[in-house]
Amino acid sequence: MSRAVAGPEIERLIQLLARLPGLGPRSARRAALHLVKKREQLLGPLAEAIAVARDSIVVCSTCGNIDTSDPCALCRDPRRDDAQIVVVADIGDLWALERSGAVMGRYHVLGGVLSALDGVRPEHLALETLVARASDAAVTEIILALSATVDGQTTAHVIADMLAHLPVKVTRLAHGVPVGGELDYLDDGTLAAAIRQRTGS
Amino acid sequence: MSRAVAGPEIERLIQLLARLPGLGPRSARRAALHLVKKREQLLGPLAEAIAVARDSIVVCSTCGNIDTSDPCALCRDPRRDDAQIVVVADIGDLWALERSGAVMGRYHVLGGVLSALDGVRPEHLALETLVARASDAAVTEIILALSATVDGQTTAHVIADMLAHLPVKVTRLAHGVPVGGELDYLDDGTLAAAIRQRTGS
Repeated sequence: MSRAVAGPEIERLIQLLARLPGLGPRSARRAALHLVKKREQLLGPLAEAIAVARDSIVVCSTCGNIDTSDPCALCRDPRRDDAQIVVVADIGDLWALERSGAVMGRYHVLGGVLSALDGVRPEHLALETLVARASDAAVTEIILALSATVDGQTTAHVIADMLAHLPVKVTRLAHGVPVGGELDYLDDGTLAAAIRQRTGS
Repeated sequence: MSRAVAGPEIERLIQLLARLPGLGPRSARRAALHLVKKREQLLGPLAEAIAVARDSIVVCSTCGNIDTSDPCALCRDPRRDDAQIVVVADIGDLWALERSGAVMGRYHVLGGVLSALDGVRPEHLALETLVARASDAAVTEIILALSATVDGQTTAHVIADMLAHLPVKVTRLAHGVPVGGELDYLDDGTLAAAIRQRTGS
């Protein structure tokens, strides 16, 4: 089916683009064609941006975020609250929380969640460094911002156990109705949680 | 909504990826994160592939295809039939036809279709060069492989008119049932065309 029709250089570009999440072989072809057509406006700048990313991006040895410096900008920012550490599974979750603007503390990226099915065990996650950071006297609260899936909640449970001997408060994200969400479309578990955790208006 | 959370280098990469067709701001963020995580396997090779594309890809001055040489590999290929020219709107259409393996002739990329709404007039398309190529004594058939839309069919009509004074046969793609398609889901116009253009089995 995927007979090479566009010369090896373009085929190579298509193949690599097809490995991006969200792009299949067909959309990668469309993307490559778009890139080649917009050589000045898009192909050149993208080549530079990717080269810069390749050469300059490092993983923060404190929190696991990516940035062009280690420690990262979030770990260095003196206005953030050292007392709070928000634990996330992945950098994408960190970005989502940052966009929400609701987090004033620091982050800790686990690098995934525990999963018996996928063979992810505690030693695969940044758990020891989390315990070390949580042992700092300045830290008073660990917020477990993990997905409300079985694996996410198992991971949250394991972390809460690991931190039980420390004088830190361990909290989790609230369950409830998504903002803008219609009650009618919500599952029973979420609705029940939203009722139980109702707030004074 | 798009508060920068990931440092200017990564934000720049996300912005450029978001301009690819098929990727929105959210999937561009996911793609950028994936790229940065797979630095060795994906980010480096993609940087090279894009740089190669930027530096080496040219538009074929004969047919309008893209390649690393001018004329392109399809125009140079001595095994292809000089008597047939397949007219397509876009390079993506050329690639689709090449994948089908059904074309043995040469191609001619118009660069779009005529469109009153989008202000695409004859002078915006590669029509003069098509007439010049069709005037070659070696060419006996022009196959108009244009979309079965109003604009596509208008363009086909205009081209047929422009070529009417030449001793070439002008043909169009057959209408009919897509291979693997169910009759029940087909529109009446396609069904009627499939009946009219029925073939002996």
